[in-house]
Amino acid sequence: MEPVLFYGVPEGCSFGAIVALEWSGLPYRLCRVEMPGVVSSDAYRRINPVGETPTLLTEDGRLLSQSMAIFHHIAARSSDASLRPAPGTPAFDRMNESLAFLNTGFFGAFAPLWYAFEHESADKQALVDMGTAKVRKAHANLDTLLGDQPWLGGEQRSLADAYFPGIARWNDFHKVVDRREFPNVQRLHDKLQEDPAVRFAHAIEEQQPARSAGGFAGHVGLEEALERAAVTGRS
Amino acid sequence: MEPVLFYGVPEGCSFGAIVALEWSGLPYRLCRVEMPGVVSSDAYRRINPVGETPTLLTEDGRLLSQSMAIFHHIAARSSDASLRPAPGTPAFDRMNESLAFLNTGFFGAFAPLWYAFEHESADKQALVDMGTAKVRKAHANLDTLLGDQPWLGGEQRSLADAYFPGIARWNDFHKVVDRREFPNVQRLHDKLQEDPAVRFAHAIEEQQPARSAGGFAGHVGLEEALERAAVTGRS
Repeated sequence: MEPVLFYGVPEGCSFGAIVALEWSGLPYRLCRVEMPGVVSSDAYRRINPVGETPTLLTEDGRLLSQSMAIFHHIAARSSDASLRPAPGTPAFDRMNESLAFLNTGFFGAFAPLWYAFEHESADKQALVDMGTAKVRKAHANLDTLLGDQPWLGGEQRSLADAYFPGIARWNDFHKVVDRREFPNVQRLHDKLQEDPAVRFAHAIEEQQPARSAGGFAGHVGLEEALERAAVTGRS
Repeated sequence: MEPVLFYGVPEGCSFGAIVALEWSGLPYRLCRVEMPGVVSSDAYRRINPVGETPTLLTEDGRLLSQSMAIFHHIAARSSDASLRPAPGTPAFDRMNESLAFLNTGFFGAFAPLWYAFEHESADKQALVDMGTAKVRKAHANLDTLLGDQPWLGGEQRSLADAYFPGIARWNDFHKVVDRREFPNVQRLHDKLQEDPAVRFAHAIEEQQPARSAGGFAGHVGLEEALERAAVTGRS
């Protein structure tokens, strides 16, 4: 059976895993998870015990969470050899370095803004101040790390580039910095918005007609996905 | 030449990379970086442009940052085959899932507490409240994910376990939760404190006599390390 990706809407970082699946050429299905309702339900916690997206139900029936783990799983199976650098090679190191920066420094910078957005609090200003400072620093750091490279890992596209647009958009959602102050970041952002897989992921999230250039084989409902997962259980 | 790990003191998350190097059996050297002084210096920014530890100067002269990337680099070269699961295998997936959870959900939970510690702010209470809630949730999630498994990735030790103690101690530094409320977390914590590589890393940080059970070949100073790195430059 094709793997099933559980993706969260709106604004899920699981966006990147949809892009990665498209790039990989792998056949796959999608299961839509509304946030914050469904993602925190008892049903979905059978898929992901801590109530987060993305999770991947692998082709051999294991449940795999965490974007980093899912990207590595997809990379290892990609039909595009350039997306599966071998461990021990510089290309593998650069992919991991870029993925890790996005997953910690860049992703984490938005955490205080999400927390302020999701929690009633007597004083949100301290959270907004911290988030704004961190998002600004993360953009400056990314601009330095990118330099004039075409892709995050250097000359060659990697799955780190698939991860970027789904997080970068949080700057627009929270209206933090003017991305044009960071020209290298802006350039990567604009280039990826033209990518067919990124356009596809946007269309999927927005429930618009979506044309896959990869192996998308349709949606499955949460109940059906739960049944599939129950056959083998959590690895 | 042996690789050189730049590790930060006090309380650096680079602690985990020292443990990983010990477990790997690889020959290596260490370069001590005092925080926040040296880590933010112009000299160290030639090693790590965003002023963070750890960074690894690889045996072929490349500079590699981000714990995730360094763990993968070490794993690929480990003389212990159980520490280098092959891409595409369930063991590789589990290692990545555990590393990613630690590197995002667990590590990131402490970010507001570090920010409050390092920044003068009119109102730290909102940051402390957010950090406390997140650290508690991260411990609860980790306790659930661990269950009665002996190691983070299941039955077999992985480099995710090397990463854990250097972050888990931040709970003690910031005095957030009573770890005994999370018996699975407490059990893993206590087991790792008895590990010779963890004892070694503590002794290195504290500048006590340290006995390597791995390939530690001594310290190098920052100036010497900069000269080594300058030969090939940043990859």
